[in-house]
Amino acid sequence: MTKDLKPSFNNKTPAGDTHSRNVCDHCDFVHYENPKIVVGSVVRHEGKILLCRRAIEPRKGYWTIPAGYLELNESPQQGAKREAMEEANADLNLGDLLAVYTVERLSQVQILYRATLNSPDFSAGEESLEVQLFEWKDIPWDDIAFPTVHWILEHDRQVEAGEAKGPFENPVGQTADL
Amino acid sequence: MTKDLKPSFNNKTPAGDTHSRNVCDHCDFVHYENPKIVVGSVVRHEGKILLCRRAIEPRKGYWTIPAGYLELNESPQQGAKREAMEEANADLNLGDLLAVYTVERLSQVQILYRATLNSPDFSAGEESLEVQLFEWKDIPWDDIAFPTVHWILEHDRQVEAGEAKGPFENPVGQTADL
Repeated sequence: MTKDLKPSFNNKTPAGDTHSRNVCDHCDFVHYENPKIVVGSVVRHEGKILLCRRAIEPRKGYWTIPAGYLELNESPQQGAKREAMEEANADLNLGDLLAVYTVERLSQVQILYRATLNSPDFSAGEESLEVQLFEWKDIPWDDIAFPTVHWILEHDRQVEAGEAKGPFENPVGQTADL
Repeated sequence: MTKDLKPSFNNKTPAGDTHSRNVCDHCDFVHYENPKIVVGSVVRHEGKILLCRRAIEPRKGYWTIPAGYLELNESPQQGAKREAMEEANADLNLGDLLAVYTVERLSQVQILYRATLNSPDFSAGEESLEVQLFEWKDIPWDDIAFPTVHWILEHDRQVEAGEAKGPFENPVGQTADL
């Protein structure tokens, strides 16, 4: 144990590799990076939509759907339910796959579902400042955390209105850049 | 630089985290492991299905659809097209999302599409021993590489026959264990 060291990585191409990787300056450990999977859901209850106000960065104080990184040995469906429990103490009945988005800038694939509440009880989890059900017209559009939250709310509205069927991809001509 | 050190990780729960992670004994770097994304497609041409015989382990010599790991900064659609080019020198016209499967044992999420050939030309890429178009009845069922390949071929058949609409999840009651 040499706990005086701090993490220190540099970009180099390991022997036998074709891509450059982050390699540890201390021990040559190669930190392979893979695209990450975000799972989440648009949760409806009596026509209203459940949103969480973020207690953590990035975009602390802004509103988002319950969503987060998929864990190891977990299906996207299990992950979407877990995130809603962690962030909103909400017990979900998960519905159809609503969208598969790509945020290329972040190497992130988002797998998002429709859902309803199994029980009307919910409250802010550790990562949320508050959790609230919104009528469509009352959604705090100017304080939405991420572009993909705008996308998924609009896509869910289209399905709810019978205008389109999912699952959706990224809206044409839009980027997820903030 | 203290290059006499060797990589050394232990499983512990970082402060503020909910899961145990691999933490470096030297510098407390947290090595988050994430689920991996496999992308691929069922490729049809004049009613036949394109399969590749694997030139690499695992399951070398067995037949599979063109598929592989999603790269950084790549959409699943781009990845599915790239894999078909790498493994079968096949130029795809990508269609609908066909399935999102989870192989929990491998922490793998598979995002699979329907596709057709833009041109009838194809040939074995470096990771394939051979590439062939099969009539449904001639598919080498006993020499299929992975359970998920069985799943996706059957799901594609259902869509082709108009019996069901995708996207599909894991078939109920089946595991992807070999």
